[in-house]
Amino acid sequence: MIVVMEERATEAQIDAVIARLIELGMDVHRSSGATRTVLGVVGTGKIEKEMIEILDGVHEVLRISEPYKRASRSYHPEDTVVTIDDLRIGGDEVIVMAGPCSAESDEQCQATAAAVRRAGAKVLRGGAFKPRSSPYSFQGHGEHGLQMLRRAADTHTLKLVSEVMDVSQIELVAKYCDIFQVGARNMQNYTLLRELGHARKPVLLKRGISATIEEWLLSAEYILAGGNTDVILCERGIRTFETATRNTFDISAIPVVKKLSHLPVVADPSHGAGRRDMVAQLARAAVAAGADGLIIEVHNDPDHALSDGAQSMFPAQFDRLMAELRIIAPAIGRSICLEAVARRGWAR
Amino acid sequence: MIVVMEERATEAQIDAVIARLIELGMDVHRSSGATRTVLGVVGTGKIEKEMIEILDGVHEVLRISEPYKRASRSYHPEDTVVTIDDLRIGGDEVIVMAGPCSAESDEQCQATAAAVRRAGAKVLRGGAFKPRSSPYSFQGHGEHGLQMLRRAADTHTLKLVSEVMDVSQIELVAKYCDIFQVGARNMQNYTLLRELGHARKPVLLKRGISATIEEWLLSAEYILAGGNTDVILCERGIRTFETATRNTFDISAIPVVKKLSHLPVVADPSHGAGRRDMVAQLARAAVAAGADGLIIEVHNDPDHALSDGAQSMFPAQFDRLMAELRIIAPAIGRSICLEAVARRGWAR
Amino acid sequence: MIVVMEERATEAQIDAVIARLIELGMDVHRSSGATRTVLGVVGTGKIEKEMIEILDGVHEVLRISEPYKRASRSYHPEDTVVTIDDLRIGGDEVIVMAGPCSAESDEQCQATAAAVRRAGAKVLRGGAFKPRSSPYSFQGHGEHGLQMLRRAADTHTLKLVSEVMDVSQIELVAKYCDIFQVGARNMQNYTLLRELGHARKPVLLKRGISATIEEWLLSAEYILAGGNTDVILCERGIRTFETATRNTFDISAIPVVKKLSHLPVVADPSHGAGRRDMVAQLARAAVAAGADGLIIEVHNDPDHALSDGAQSMFPAQFDRLMAELRIIAPAIGRSICLEAVARRGWAR
Amino acid sequence: MIVVMEERATEAQIDAVIARLIELGMDVHRSSGATRTVLGVVGTGKIEKEMIEILDGVHEVLRISEPYKRASRSYHPEDTVVTIDDLRIGGDEVIVMAGPCSAESDEQCQATAAAVRRAGAKVLRGGAFKPRSSPYSFQGHGEHGLQMLRRAADTHTLKLVSEVMDVSQIELVAKYCDIFQVGARNMQNYTLLRELGHARKPVLLKRGISATIEEWLLSAEYILAGGNTDVILCERGIRTFETATRNTFDISAIPVVKKLSHLPVVADPSHGAGRRDMVAQLARAAVAAGADGLIIEVHNDPDHALSDGAQSMFPAQFDRLMAELRIIAPAIGRSICLEAVARRGWAR
Repeated sequence: MIVVMEERATEAQIDAVIARLIELGMDVHRSSGATRTVLGVVGTGKIEKEMIEILDGVHEVLRISEPYKRASRSYHPEDTVVTIDDLRIGGDEVIVMAGPCSAESDEQCQATAAAVRRAGAKVLRGGAFKPRSSPYSFQGHGEHGLQMLRRAADTHTLKLVSEVMDVSQIELVAKYCDIFQVGARNMQNYTLLRELGHARKPVLLKRGISATIEEWLLSAEYILAGGNTDVILCERGIRTFETATRNTFDISAIPVVKKLSHLPVVADPSHGAGRRDMVAQLARAAVAAGADGLIIEVHNDPDHALSDGAQSMFPAQFDRLMAELRIIAPAIGRSICLEAVARRGWAR
Repeated sequence: MIVVMEERATEAQIDAVIARLIELGMDVHRSSGATRTVLGVVGTGKIEKEMIEILDGVHEVLRISEPYKRASRSYHPEDTVVTIDDLRIGGDEVIVMAGPCSAESDEQCQATAAAVRRAGAKVLRGGAFKPRSSPYSFQGHGEHGLQMLRRAADTHTLKLVSEVMDVSQIELVAKYCDIFQVGARNMQNYTLLRELGHARKPVLLKRGISATIEEWLLSAEYILAGGNTDVILCERGIRTFETATRNTFDISAIPVVKKLSHLPVVADPSHGAGRRDMVAQLARAAVAAGADGLIIEVHNDPDHALSDGAQSMFPAQFDRLMAELRIIAPAIGRSICLEAVARRGWAR
Repeated sequence: MIVVMEERATEAQIDAVIARLIELGMDVHRSSGATRTVLGVVGTGKIEKEMIEILDGVHEVLRISEPYKRASRSYHPEDTVVTIDDLRIGGDEVIVMAGPCSAESDEQCQATAAAVRRAGAKVLRGGAFKPRSSPYSFQGHGEHGLQMLRRAADTHTLKLVSEVMDVSQIELVAKYCDIFQVGARNMQNYTLLRELGHARKPVLLKRGISATIEEWLLSAEYILAGGNTDVILCERGIRTFETATRNTFDISAIPVVKKLSHLPVVADPSHGAGRRDMVAQLARAAVAAGADGLIIEVHNDPDHALSDGAQSMFPAQFDRLMAELRIIAPAIGRSICLEAVARRGWAR
Repeated sequence: MIVVMEERATEAQIDAVIARLIELGMDVHRSSGATRTVLGVVGTGKIEKEMIEILDGVHEVLRISEPYKRASRSYHPEDTVVTIDDLRIGGDEVIVMAGPCSAESDEQCQATAAAVRRAGAKVLRGGAFKPRSSPYSFQGHGEHGLQMLRRAADTHTLKLVSEVMDVSQIELVAKYCDIFQVGARNMQNYTLLRELGHARKPVLLKRGISATIEEWLLSAEYILAGGNTDVILCERGIRTFETATRNTFDISAIPVVKKLSHLPVVADPSHGAGRRDMVAQLARAAVAAGADGLIIEVHNDPDHALSDGAQSMFPAQFDRLMAELRIIAPAIGRSICLEAVARRGWAR
């Protein structure tokens, strides 16, 4: 930490700041320049930056290390690859997760799973507990929804990712899913994050709509600190002044996260776009920018979906998108579901 | 709901949209102008705006009513006054809630409660469960903290407001507090809101840092829909591009909420400012703008506070602020703790 | 325009609103529902939405048409292709503009132009007048800078785009450049836009960092309204709460603009990223999302650039990026500088 | 400047950074800690932070001084009071500027000036050149408008503030006004700011809707650097995600500016609110927060105003507001137009 004193700070003020820092268990290195005094502060004490900033004569306090540790690339320089059986998230292959917003019926789950598997998805996505901003909207089918999703995933050899909204749901969701999803609204539900730190399954952690990348990595730190090292980050759009789209998909977050952290990062173009006719463009952009995967809403009959129908792709749209992505991925040395290509007899 | 068709929408597209709306249980009134067709849509069906917006030939869909009902002033034109014994929040008197960020010790709670009561506060604030963005920070004393706060409140004839972070804590917090506080990070924790809708104590609902006023009122709706009509809204700053302050205190939210809703609204200048030397300015501004109350962090020894020390006021600062507020409130026909004035023999 | 009355609006209030609208030269169609009255308003009068919104009993006023006309796709359904000799911006080929932030010397202009031409750029970019947020920074070489840029462009068969900051500079810049650039800070300099509406050269209009897409198209409207139909839009990042990048590159703006307008849209990943190690990722993303072109800062010696050195690419980086883009463009049916491929004997 | 190296930075990387800094004319003080190396950098060279940040092995670069100088309180610790004859802006009295959005007719100017003067305003505001986001809106009366405003100001013993939009208008506007106004959209029109630095009249500099406080002070620096020390800052709302108000009035900017700078700061609640029924609340809040003045739109007949009618107050509303402000100002040791009180025989 570096404490920058005001130009007109008095000796008494400087001494008081140094004394306070020492009281807090820190070592202080004083450096007096022509116009200002700067204090270098090191040690293992816990100090909130704001506590020092408020002291008389202090101009500014600058942190020189990130507040997260296990999530940072300096702690773990190699890329983390999250592995579930033969599925590798964060490796050379771009992994696509796809499926309905929420599980509605066995037919819907099966039909959608068949379609996304055929196009090359490796993971089925789908919700059983839905956080809705209006208390009067459809809230999901609970355990029954999880059962339908699991059956569909098993039938079509897919892994399953599904949202857990509350500590009380962890045990139940764990029975059915392969990857826990933490939604954007829960990104700072620390009680939930802490418990997932003790879970034995990977966690896909969505970025909150107003979370900085630093806060997102701090939330990942909660999970990592509990011993669960399998965290997958997921960018899904942030809130800005622009109203033409529901959120502003922060494409830059992908290279920034790759630089600051070793964790894999996937993109959710469905929530980023908010409407199906812009999902493909964002999905292609995310892969071109280096995302390790995608999570996309696809529904066998979006016009009659109980939730998020407007942003769910038709199976045929998803199929075409996957074909486009197979052209783009090699531009940056990656691939997308080569098995599907082989299965369907497509030329590579 | 009003559906605006594109200028070049075909008859077939218009018919398809009308058919879809009727299928969804709505009545449609078609109005064809020189350049565009507009459809007026009424009925009791549940339609997501986005579902119609994605249909071919649709230019835009406009809602003509707020998505919340019980929280709106058209539903309940008179101001709601939340009453706890003889305390009235939302009436002529501006109610001040004050106290430490978190309960640390009996001495701290007692000393702070004595100071804020003397200055004219009516409610003690203080946390026992603390949501912290870093997993390595102090997380609160739990039930022991609640006991210390309750004792301090009782000794000094104050009511108590304290945060509940999770459904599992409701019963415990209810044993000690008079008002539940829902923090900004939990504003969209619908599981929690729904449970508080069945509680028999008022809820102070902080605005999320990236929540629109509409979303905030929708969250209030969750509580109101459960039957708990005692909701107090609390503005505490939103996230913007400006970094000179931790958050941007949205002073306009006060008159906007007063116009859209009947619920009382209080301001939290401590979190709005993030540092103690700007709390008084925002507190005065909030009262001048028409806030029904304030919730302010005060600590008997802020320099040694375990959390939020930088934004906690010294008792003497709080005392001076209360004196300033007593001058301001009458400008808009309100008062602040006349008893304290009487008790201390001050001239009005 | 649609005027939605409050649920409790009185007959007198409704009549007063109707009278006011008629006074303003509009026709009003009244529709009274079970809970509210809605007024459909048509006509050629000029009304500001806010003027009606403030009237007693009015709940909300909704516009049903965009405030811009010539810039909209409904006015001009076909894509506009801006043509300069044999250069076509907005056609099948993705056009790349590249060059230094500012012209510094003949050697620098020539070396950079040679490098970007070799890699496949078709337009040289470079500034002679630089808007700088600090009055103490380098402000550009003026006409001498334009001369250096023009010579470099001519030597290497490139077109030239350069910024014009003020009405007084138009004539001068027009002598040297093929395309005027209007910078983000000038997006709402209406005096400048109006004059450029009378110019006979295309205008590349950057989006302001806090401009909505609607405001951006309204600024384009200023130019189009003057008779200049050759407007190229340029997305370069918006200001949000995120501080990890200088701006948030709004990738969604590309498909949104394509939907709302017929004008070509290019992307500026250099300003979007703010640092050279993230330019390639954003450039690839923009092409994958459907951008009609790119404008990229490249410098023959970025470490010694007088401005924007940190975000200028080395020629070798730019070369590699162009190779990646040539793989990506065909995924959406487009190409990038096939001549360069031919010239250099590359396999397609 | 402080350069923080990455934890794993090599000696070669550290040496290269030091060499580069020395090449740029700086002195470097190296400090190697247990985990990282930190470089303290001083000197008079001009370095852009980003140029160093991009070097290999650099984790972050922190500035330790503000980029502005003459605008900062450390350069000029005493409050600046801008004086025009007997008018003092930045002193004990809160100065109110009021008048129409734009000059429309002699009658309108005279009637409005009479009303605002009677209520206690000291300065008439009004525009003759109007920046409008649509090319199809009313653009102002130009010099004729200035003449009408000047006559009204003289008749009622008011000073006059009016907007200058372009360098070419400076001479003309200077003939009529006492204070130049620079609008929000021109806050970074550096050509204009530089010229106003040579003017002999005070400049009221509005904050851009997406400008940070630091950028705003940098724009003030442009004017101050030219020798014009009479700059008045004006907060008028920033752009955020909230759409319930046109802008978010940043009340915190007032205490922040007071801390960082010596320049007077006034508030524009009319543009901050966007509608007249919220102007009074924001105006009171601004004075309670410590603003040195207000600039408010008042119109003798707002319903028929040619621009901004919805946010213009009626004279009677303005009168009531002034009475409220006279109660509030003394709470922080200030006064508002005591002469008006005396003139009208009011009790203080």
